[in-house]
Formats: sequence, C-alpha cells, structure tokens
Amino acid sequence: MTAVKDFEGFRQRMDKRILESGNKVIKRVYSVDNLAYSDGALDIKVKEMLGLVASLVLRCDDCVKYHLRRCKEEGIVEEQLFEAMSVGLVVGGTIVIPHLRRAADYWDALHASEA
Amino acid sequence: MTAVKDFEGFRQRMDKRILESGNKVIKRVYSVDNLAYSDGALDIKVKEMLGLVASLVLRCDDCVKYHLRRCKEEGIVEEQLFEAMSVGLVVGGTIVIPHLRRAADYWDALHASEA
Amino acid sequence: MTAVKDFEGFRQRMDKRILESGNKVIKRVYSVDNLAYSDGALDIKVKEMLGLVASLVLRCDDCVKYHLRRCKEEGIVEEQLFEAMSVGLVVGGTIVIPHLRRAADYWDALHASEA
Amino acid sequence: MTAVKDFEGFRQRMDKRILESGNKVIKRVYSVDNLAYSDGALDIKVKEMLGLVASLVLRCDDCVKYHLRRCKEEGIVEEQLFEAMSVGLVVGGTIVIPHLRRAADYWDALHASEA
Amino acid sequence: MTAVKDFEGFRQRMDKRILESGNKVIKRVYSVDNLAYSDGALDIKVKEMLGLVASLVLRCDDCVKYHLRRCKEEGIVEEQLFEAMSVGLVVGGTIVIPHLRRAADYWDALHASEA
Amino acid sequence: MTAVKDFEGFRQRMDKRILESGNKVIKRVYSVDNLAYSDGALDIKVKEMLGLVASLVLRCDDCVKYHLRRCKEEGIVEEQLFEAMSVGLVVGGTIVIPHLRRAADYWDALHASEA
Repeated sequence: MTAVKDFEGFRQRMDKRILESGNKVIKRVYSVDNLAYSDGALDIKVKEMLGLVASLVLRCDDCVKYHLRRCKEEGIVEEQLFEAMSVGLVVGGTIVIPHLRRAADYWDALHASEA
Repeated sequence: MTAVKDFEGFRQRMDKRILESGNKVIKRVYSVDNLAYSDGALDIKVKEMLGLVASLVLRCDDCVKYHLRRCKEEGIVEEQLFEAMSVGLVVGGTIVIPHLRRAADYWDALHASEA
Repeated sequence: MTAVKDFEGFRQRMDKRILESGNKVIKRVYSVDNLAYSDGALDIKVKEMLGLVASLVLRCDDCVKYHLRRCKEEGIVEEQLFEAMSVGLVVGGTIVIPHLRRAADYWDALHASEA
Repeated sequence: MTAVKDFEGFRQRMDKRILESGNKVIKRVYSVDNLAYSDGALDIKVKEMLGLVASLVLRCDDCVKYHLRRCKEEGIVEEQLFEAMSVGLVVGGTIVIPHLRRAADYWDALHASEA
Repeated sequence: MTAVKDFEGFRQRMDKRILESGNKVIKRVYSVDNLAYSDGALDIKVKEMLGLVASLVLRCDDCVKYHLRRCKEEGIVEEQLFEAMSVGLVVGGTIVIPHLRRAADYWDALHASEA
Repeated sequence: MTAVKDFEGFRQRMDKRILESGNKVIKRVYSVDNLAYSDGALDIKVKEMLGLVASLVLRCDDCVKYHLRRCKEEGIVEEQLFEAMSVGLVVGGTIVIPHLRRAADYWDALHASEA
C-alpha cells in the first residue's frame, strides 16, 4: 500500500539523517521515546493507546500513523481503537475530526497493505 | 475545481466510514457539531464566522476550508471574511499566516468552482 | 468586585510597564490589537465575540476575561454569550470546560461589580 | 484537604451554573463527556488514563486533577500512574513538567484527604 | 530544487493576494513581522533562530521552512542549527519529531538548490 | 521576594518528589533537559533565550519564569530580553500578552529579590 510505504520510508530515511547529524540531545530524545513505550507496570498495549490519543489531541498525523501501526501490531481491534480515539475526540473537540478522518484512512491502508 | 472536490469527497467518504464504525461517542460529537451552528440567539452567519476563526487560531486547514464554504453559502462577502480572519491573525500571531494563505487560496477556489 | 478590580489593575499596570520598555515591536502589536476590534465591515459586537471564542479555544483565561467585559459593554446578552462560547466548546473539546467555568464565574463577577 | 475540596467545590458549583444557562449544545457536550469514559471494549481504567494523558499533553491542570481523582477511584497505583504520565511527558516535552509537578502535588493531596 | 521553488512561489503569490485584499490589520501584522527580525540589541542571527524554534515548537512546517532559509542566509551552520532545533525538541517533545524530519529534509533541499 | 521564593521552592520540592518515584523515563527527560541548555556550537546565552521564547509561545508561565532567572544569571540585559520576547509575541500573537505581563512582573521580582 503506497500510503504506508511512503510514510514509513520517509520516516526511516529522515530519522537516519537526523541521528547522523551527531547531536547528542536529539539522540537521547529518540532513545527515551523508545523506553517510554516498553513493558512495565502498564502493558505495551495500553501505552501505545496512550501515545495514540496524546498524538491525536495534539493533532500530529504522522505520530498518529506511527501509533496506529503499533496498535495494530499489538493486536488492538477496531472497536477498541475507535473507543480510544473517541476519548481523544471528546477531550480535543471537533478540531480533531480531520485527523480522525486521516487516522481511519490510514488504519484501513494498514490492513489493505497486508492483504 | 479539483481542490474543492477533493476535499469535500474525502471528507464525506471518511465521515461515512467513521460513523459506520458504530461508536456512539463519535456519533454524538458529530451530532452536537451540527447543533452548534444552527440558528438561535446568534444567527448562523455569526456562528460560522466564530467556527472559522476558532479553526484558524487552532490552525486546522480542513476545518477552515469547511467553514469557508459555509461562510460563502451564508453570503459573507470578502471584506467581512478578511476582517474575521484578521482577528484570528492578531490573536494567533504570524504562525497563522501559512493557514491564512491556504484559506485565501481555497476561498478563491470556491469561487472559481462555481464560475 | 475584587476579581474584576484585581484583573484590570494588574493588566493596566503591566501594560504600562511593558510599553515603557520602549520596544517598538511590542508597541506595534498592542496598536494593531486595538485596530483589529474597531468598527468595519463587521460590527464591534461580532468582532468581540470572535476575539472571545478565539481566546476560549486557545484557552487563555485573561484574554477571555478581557473580551467578556467588552462583550458586556457592547450589550451582548447571556443567551448570545453562551451560544458563542458553545461554539468554542464544540470546536475545542472538553479541555475547554475549566475555562468555561472561569468565564461564567467572571461574567457573574462583572455583573455583580456594577450592582 | 483544602486543595481537593476547593477544586471539587468550584467545579460542581460552576457546572451547575453553566448547565442552568439552558444552552443545549453545552448540555450535550457534558453528556457525551460522561459517555466517553463509560465501560466498553476498553475498560474504565484504561479510558481514565487516556483522559489523563490527553489532559496532560494539552496542559490543562483542572482536567488532570479530575482524572487523577478518577484514576485513584479506579484503583490505579502510583507506579502505573507515573508510567502513564511519563508517556505524556515524552510526547509533550518539558513544557509538561510544571503540570507534572502540580499533578504529583494533587495526587498526594488526594491521598492525604482520605487519611 | 522543486521543494524550495514550490514553497517560495506559493508563499509569495498568496502574500500578494492577501495584501491586495486591502485589510489594514493584516497589512500591519505583515509589517511588524518584518520589524521583529531586524537588527537591534540582539543580532539577526539570534532572532532568526528564535523564530525557527518558536515555529518548531508551535509545529508550523511553513514557518520552519521560511526561517531555515533565513538561517542559512545568515550563515548559521548545521551544528548550530541542530542545537537550536534540539532545544525545540526537548521543550516541545516527540510530537515535534515529524516536523524535525521535514525541517532536515528542507534544509538539505535548500543546500541542493544552490549546488 | 516572595514570588521568586515560592516558585523556586515548589519547583525544587516537586522535582524531588517526582524523581523519587523512580520512573526511569521521567528521570531521563530531566537529564536531557539539562543537556539541551549546555554549552556547544551555540553559547548558553542563546540557548536560554531559545528556551524562553519556546516557553513563551507555548504559554507556560512556570517555564518562562525558570528561563527568565537563567537569562538574568547569564547576563542578558532588559533590552535584549524584550527583543527576544517580542519575537515570541509576534509569532504567537496577542494570546501571548497575558504571559508577557507575568514575565515582566517576574523579571522585576527577580531584580527586586537581590536588591
């Protein structure tokens, strides 16, 4: 699926470019980003939904896309996903709707890409 | 006009997809969204401008596009539109300018699409 | 009413302090701020409501307070005010509610202060 | 504990005031707000953490306070709470830290208030 | 380089369109925008980095692009640029990362466009 | 000066409380926060102003207070400070003004506290 490949390709290419700049602060932020979603007192599934909803209310499409893929990998099903996003919609208001549209579209693209 | 058709097409298709998910919270948010812009103590024209400026300062291009179409349908003329948007620009700062550019572009596309 | 006097007193004192710093950019922003809400193709009443709703969705209590006073001075009645703020609530989500509470409280304080 | 009582008192008093204004849009937003956190495909515990983290990254202290109380009522323990908030901190950045300080302070106040 | 030309072309065309609308408030905001980055107690280099980081934490790609070009024109080198952006990343959190990716991509495009 | 002591006291007390929770993600964010403002290709003075303006446009009073103290310690004088903040005001709009008022007030408190 082009949408998924394009996003993941750009993401990986630019992360490589950024980390090769040698900036230590940026490198550490990337590292703590990984740590934040690792298993602990809360399981990964919950943490990925927390990341998704935080991204949704802050209205970052790319962050939403990333967490949608991770949510799918962790076995979160559509009914759970929409419930999680509905919390974000209520908290963040109708300004979130365009991002919800793109999220639903990408969620479908993720499933189409493995068909 | 392609810009208008593309936006409205995606919007309608994804709203249908989202509502068919059956999530009741999302459905109710869509419903209250309609209610908020209906006639009351303030007329629709004013409410649409309120929605436009709220969308502009929150910097949501899709929301701005939607309210631009509605403002046009309600008979708001260009001088009024730019005055409304100028309030958003002053409150929201120069960070709003790129969204103002896309708003002006879409406003022109809306007029070109009916020519 | 203490709440009104305290807010207006601090606002005026600090605006004076800031403008006396002699920074020309800041001075011009203050000046364009006044211009934005002056009479034009849209009347002042509408512009004040635009400023109010922009402030509400950006969740700035002090800005909301300022526009509440101006809305009251322009003769906006409670039913209109709540309709305007309800647009902000729908666009901005439940995150706006705490600001709506403080807005309602200040609206009442404004009326009590003239009793 | 004064901090808890003051917050809850103001919240309840102003919600009553706002709902008595008779605005139907506002009333429905309050209603869908309750629905969003009810049991479903995700349990209440998870939804409350989603609400907490959404509130934290949007940096609304009052919303954070509300969800902290609900998280405590749902039996979320401190280690889980800080893990949830750490996701919000990573996503939202150090700008979140002052809100994290107030959250930790209120979390302690909630426990002190029942001692 | 297409990315640079496309952005600059649209920016200039729409700024012309907007200013021709004759709205005085908008005109003055554009004017104070220029003044803010002029030489003073702080040199232009520092001011452009301030504008860049402000744009980055507010997550406005177009504003970031503009300031990247200006930073390059002022002789800011890559190590300085990434240090400035790393401050924005820490303050603004991982939600900034997608904008950092697009910034790094545009920075490279700016250099490729003059090769 | 009470304002300065109160802020710094609460900040230090709660940072201690938060770090004692033992959450590793939070601990690392605090650590990278320190690293971001250390000497490098840009000097500390510039980095503190970047942190100040980022905090101002994101409208976090506590973050602004922290960077004001650091700016003062680094020898930034009032004219430079207001120029830096004026960039934030232009980018962020009049919604920034209430935070500018509190910033000016705290800047004066910082100077009064050492008199």
